[in-house]
Amino acid sequence: MATLYLNAEKTTVAPYVIFSGDPWRVEVLKRYLDNPTHVAFNREFNTYTGSYKGVPITVSSTGIGAPSAAIALEEMYEAGMMVAVRMGTSMSLLDDMLGNFIIPAAVVRRDGTSDTYVERGYPAVADIELVNAMNKTVADHGRRYLNGITCSMDGFYTQMHDSRLSQEQGRDISSTFDEMKRLHVCAIDMESSCILTVARLMGVRACVVTVATVLENLKDSLKGDERTSAEDLLCRVTLEGLARFAAV
Amino acid sequence: MATLYLNAEKTTVAPYVIFSGDPWRVEVLKRYLDNPTHVAFNREFNTYTGSYKGVPITVSSTGIGAPSAAIALEEMYEAGMMVAVRMGTSMSLLDDMLGNFIIPAAVVRRDGTSDTYVERGYPAVADIELVNAMNKTVADHGRRYLNGITCSMDGFYTQMHDSRLSQEQGRDISSTFDEMKRLHVCAIDMESSCILTVARLMGVRACVVTVATVLENLKDSLKGDERTSAEDLLCRVTLEGLARFAAV
Amino acid sequence: MATLYLNAEKTTVAPYVIFSGDPWRVEVLKRYLDNPTHVAFNREFNTYTGSYKGVPITVSSTGIGAPSAAIALEEMYEAGMMVAVRMGTSMSLLDDMLGNFIIPAAVVRRDGTSDTYVERGYPAVADIELVNAMNKTVADHGRRYLNGITCSMDGFYTQMHDSRLSQEQGRDISSTFDEMKRLHVCAIDMESSCILTVARLMGVRACVVTVATVLENLKDSLKGDERTSAEDLLCRVTLEGLARFAAV
Amino acid sequence: MATLYLNAEKTTVAPYVIFSGDPWRVEVLKRYLDNPTHVAFNREFNTYTGSYKGVPITVSSTGIGAPSAAIALEEMYEAGMMVAVRMGTSMSLLDDMLGNFIIPAAVVRRDGTSDTYVERGYPAVADIELVNAMNKTVADHGRRYLNGITCSMDGFYTQMHDSRLSQEQGRDISSTFDEMKRLHVCAIDMESSCILTVARLMGVRACVVTVATVLENLKDSLKGDERTSAEDLLCRVTLEGLARFAAV
Amino acid sequence: MATLYLNAEKTTVAPYVIFSGDPWRVEVLKRYLDNPTHVAFNREFNTYTGSYKGVPITVSSTGIGAPSAAIALEEMYEAGMMVAVRMGTSMSLLDDMLGNFIIPAAVVRRDGTSDTYVERGYPAVADIELVNAMNKTVADHGRRYLNGITCSMDGFYTQMHDSRLSQEQGRDISSTFDEMKRLHVCAIDMESSCILTVARLMGVRACVVTVATVLENLKDSLKGDERTSAEDLLCRVTLEGLARFAAV
Amino acid sequence: MATLYLNAEKTTVAPYVIFSGDPWRVEVLKRYLDNPTHVAFNREFNTYTGSYKGVPITVSSTGIGAPSAAIALEEMYEAGMMVAVRMGTSMSLLDDMLGNFIIPAAVVRRDGTSDTYVERGYPAVADIELVNAMNKTVADHGRRYLNGITCSMDGFYTQMHDSRLSQEQGRDISSTFDEMKRLHVCAIDMESSCILTVARLMGVRACVVTVATVLENLKDSLKGDERTSAEDLLCRVTLEGLARFAAV
Repeated sequence: MATLYLNAEKTTVAPYVIFSGDPWRVEVLKRYLDNPTHVAFNREFNTYTGSYKGVPITVSSTGIGAPSAAIALEEMYEAGMMVAVRMGTSMSLLDDMLGNFIIPAAVVRRDGTSDTYVERGYPAVADIELVNAMNKTVADHGRRYLNGITCSMDGFYTQMHDSRLSQEQGRDISSTFDEMKRLHVCAIDMESSCILTVARLMGVRACVVTVATVLENLKDSLKGDERTSAEDLLCRVTLEGLARFAAV
Repeated sequence: MATLYLNAEKTTVAPYVIFSGDPWRVEVLKRYLDNPTHVAFNREFNTYTGSYKGVPITVSSTGIGAPSAAIALEEMYEAGMMVAVRMGTSMSLLDDMLGNFIIPAAVVRRDGTSDTYVERGYPAVADIELVNAMNKTVADHGRRYLNGITCSMDGFYTQMHDSRLSQEQGRDISSTFDEMKRLHVCAIDMESSCILTVARLMGVRACVVTVATVLENLKDSLKGDERTSAEDLLCRVTLEGLARFAAV
Repeated sequence: MATLYLNAEKTTVAPYVIFSGDPWRVEVLKRYLDNPTHVAFNREFNTYTGSYKGVPITVSSTGIGAPSAAIALEEMYEAGMMVAVRMGTSMSLLDDMLGNFIIPAAVVRRDGTSDTYVERGYPAVADIELVNAMNKTVADHGRRYLNGITCSMDGFYTQMHDSRLSQEQGRDISSTFDEMKRLHVCAIDMESSCILTVARLMGVRACVVTVATVLENLKDSLKGDERTSAEDLLCRVTLEGLARFAAV
Repeated sequence: MATLYLNAEKTTVAPYVIFSGDPWRVEVLKRYLDNPTHVAFNREFNTYTGSYKGVPITVSSTGIGAPSAAIALEEMYEAGMMVAVRMGTSMSLLDDMLGNFIIPAAVVRRDGTSDTYVERGYPAVADIELVNAMNKTVADHGRRYLNGITCSMDGFYTQMHDSRLSQEQGRDISSTFDEMKRLHVCAIDMESSCILTVARLMGVRACVVTVATVLENLKDSLKGDERTSAEDLLCRVTLEGLARFAAV
Repeated sequence: MATLYLNAEKTTVAPYVIFSGDPWRVEVLKRYLDNPTHVAFNREFNTYTGSYKGVPITVSSTGIGAPSAAIALEEMYEAGMMVAVRMGTSMSLLDDMLGNFIIPAAVVRRDGTSDTYVERGYPAVADIELVNAMNKTVADHGRRYLNGITCSMDGFYTQMHDSRLSQEQGRDISSTFDEMKRLHVCAIDMESSCILTVARLMGVRACVVTVATVLENLKDSLKGDERTSAEDLLCRVTLEGLARFAAV
Repeated sequence: MATLYLNAEKTTVAPYVIFSGDPWRVEVLKRYLDNPTHVAFNREFNTYTGSYKGVPITVSSTGIGAPSAAIALEEMYEAGMMVAVRMGTSMSLLDDMLGNFIIPAAVVRRDGTSDTYVERGYPAVADIELVNAMNKTVADHGRRYLNGITCSMDGFYTQMHDSRLSQEQGRDISSTFDEMKRLHVCAIDMESSCILTVARLMGVRACVVTVATVLENLKDSLKGDERTSAEDLLCRVTLEGLARFAAV
């Protein structure tokens, strides 16, 4: 039976799943697959299944935020997912990582959704062998990677970016960044802590592969061709790394 | 300057905004507008601006979950929004409300995103005059409405619906529903508490208009033509109510 | 059987109940009733039952603070109460409301007593139809009303007013007021959040009607005849509004 | 200048203050004083000052609940209070204490008001020398005393006694008593934890002297003459103990 | 059967137990006993049993921190302990207490271990009669004692003392001391709150006897002979006080 | 200058540090080092420095519990530590791991000490490269390893093992184990979560290497020679792995 939101089924979904936050980037990602078949595009969930170097792979989207990411993860698990990779761009707190890879060892949990699964002290930690496979693939492509700590939060315009309201309320967004740097957190997003926590509870092996395309509070970012080629590299590294992991 | 995710601007967005959870339902909703213009469809945010009975109205989407709903609200506020109506279908805990309107007076806050704005004791409460306008419109259309309490949660598959994982973990979803009924909560969703809380902080007048199309844990639901006509009525009531409110 | 503290019984209490904080103000309020009968004056609970324009009404007191307010509410519910109105004077955070009516749509929960009933995210929200009836009555009397947000707290001399101890401890009371204003909170008291929360759980329709007689940190207040006539108007509006609501 | 609620002043209040919960019992208590002068009876605060065996003593009331108790304490401190004794009847969890004295060494903090003063781990502990003085006085009168742990709570009808609402909500009050007994808590009230916590912060020496007149959930109680004479003894022991303490 | 860590048994342990934090100080303390027998020295737990003025007494160690202190207490309780005295040196926040005795009436609970036993509002309070016995003994030896409030914390280098990391993180340790003094806390350690809390749950009568040998943040301390003789006095007072208590 | 408790100095401590919980096991461990020099044995902290295959290594002890473990870590960091390995035996929740290695990828934080450093959502995660080095070393020695999740707690006799008090209080220790297994936690101890959290904040690379010598609630354990040889293997693997890591 197909799942409620993603219309996923055991027959249409592969055990290896790559999640993008943006449903439209799935359209790009699916071009790297052999024989991609469209599963569905409901709500913010856009899904294709194909293969890469012989490994059956599904690419899908989570939308923004942990609640919809948890739905995507749950429905893919229902359909037989065994390995999950969140692939995306990230906002880096380290200036020298722009254009390089952040593949977090673990993520600070500040999202409310994973709290509905398990106490906050439970670690949102990546699968070590999967991270090793990704690290090697990045190195093979001549780029740097960092296996540090990142942080996921629920409030984009309360914790990660100024807004009209944050200014009216006198909220100082930069204090978040100062605190994060003091804690050696190297990037911020909105979904990773929930994905790694829930995958761990499922026994699904998971990791997060990101390329840093933006610096904190948008003070610098990759643009134009640079960004396009960084995103292309991100797709290739993720697929290649997954194929390498599957081969073990 | 256009906003980061929704590409909204003061020149392209109206002070009256209707939010659907589903970006694809915006395509339906925009057909009720005069002269709808497409603003953008980025991520899960799909936006049109037009007018209804002379009132300038923008229709947009929030995606699933409070984090993306807060982004939509913040960016529309940046672009000048003054009144916000979340329109949607809801899961009702009262069997006799199937097909009728739940327009909550206030919402139990169980989402993590509004916590990043203000302490949890701050009420997620609708604007009374806006609710009054919607109530009258529902009555004019010969339907029942209820101004009770609803609840918004972050965990669809931990709090609102069974899943493969919830079963493996021995989690009893039905206990949520028992608790909610004991608290006189009449419907559950994932965005309303955040929308009403954040709008209140903005000074934006807001309410939630839903038609109950599903009963708890999916035990019954409107289907086929019944559902289509309920959703059509929902669109018309929301637009009509907003026009009535604007006329005061 | 009579209740433990208020000595209330189904035979001596009406379904419409007005609560004053001050037991001695009940002596004033009861003069507006036809045929008032004294029920009891135990502890801080002073109760009379009579009628107003044919509607049977009980007037009683809660004492200061949410714990005794909850006792009053519980015992009246035991005795058959169906509608509850807290009537009182309030400390306004908006200077231009002095002498006008604050009839909150909902109240920020910072009292500890309502926490023993239900989680803090549950809204302390007034009944919309009851608020509508009160609004109209205020307008009929030529005064302004505001349906904003108020806040109830437990610590008068830690959160609402300086004291010898607060000064010794270096506690800055004014920070409470700054925070409240930033949150668009327009008045502060000690009982409303508990009354609205508990009434909602009871299915008792409730609201709060206050006239602002004091400004924050006592910086200005109604005095002498002005205050007497404001309190007289408060009594009449509350009774009139309740009669209007009962007539529907 | 007189204080806001109690109308207390340095010139009208003694350094030794006895607090009753019930304002009407102050009328009884003041009869034991020499030359009692009435200070005020506002709200639930009824105050007299006189002397006992040459020691100047003020007797006053707190009303029910920690919020009004804190107000009474704060205003008496403003007026120069140096020693505070809460005197009252208590609900005992130990059957054999009916009619005997519970003079707690310390109190479990479950009230919300003291939380506004200091973190919950801060102990609500009595002054040892004051307790010693009271113990000796009880022994001199041929009664038993217990210096155990008691507990103060905010919710009378959620934590200490059944009600119509508690039954509708399926709340099991007896579980509170089971838990309390497991923790060696010997009595329950609503004000002591706040009084001892706040007094400690003030540097005011304080204790609680109670006679157990009721057993848990009202299953037995002193009645008629027995109760009258227990309450008489309570007044005499408290005054005598305070005089003994003052004499040191 | 001997206990897991301390190797304690009913036959080798006395009902009166003195705990030192430091296992090596037990070697000193045991010299004051008549006929001391070594029970065991496992991990940080070093134990002897002997007698003092005819009273059977066991001396043992807890190690640093509440987790190991709780283990020591639990195993001694298993072996029949009825009275427990924590004896140690303390860091005083009052300059004039250096070399004098702090015998706390109660302790602020900031340790995480006692939280696993009972809610934080439960008081960590000493047994009054045991404290009285110790007070008298100190006075007999011509020294001052203070029955104030102390505080136990888990983080030595986050809350009590600067470190390389605290400086890198910009943590201001002195703010802890300022806060403590404002709360009338007179000394800080790491075990007392847990020992008093757990002993109270056991029905074991307990107190803490400390001599202040260090001032806050190490700004002054007893040294050389002064320290030796203070520690000698501490041993004698504790044993003498325990013998006095046992004799009642 | 030597540190307060461990007497550590830059000149006497190596950048590579192995921590045992038990100070007496350090005596065994130091025998594997070349030219071990004794640094100090104060309190529960016993320290030697020597070398292994040319790599300078310090071995020390933490005592039981996170508070003393944090002290050991802080003082070693003061003295220049750059890599930290906690070595110990563990209580395994997986029966088939008895005698095998658990090298956790991350640890559930249930200790109170790490809370004084950083919010609980911050992951207690091991350094991936250090774990990789240990994994390879275990495999080279023909044993199995598991890089799962473990959990650290403060309450040995409230959460990990029955006691006289736990039985009197009706506490069900087995529920902890059921919960842990449902969360895929494979072992429990009292120090690891704090060590990994604090090391991460220091920028010290850290991991935990344990051999499972006991099963949950002590239902089975290695004994006699089996245990001796498991502990010997643990020492050799840890030293060997550290030397391998240092060589990279």
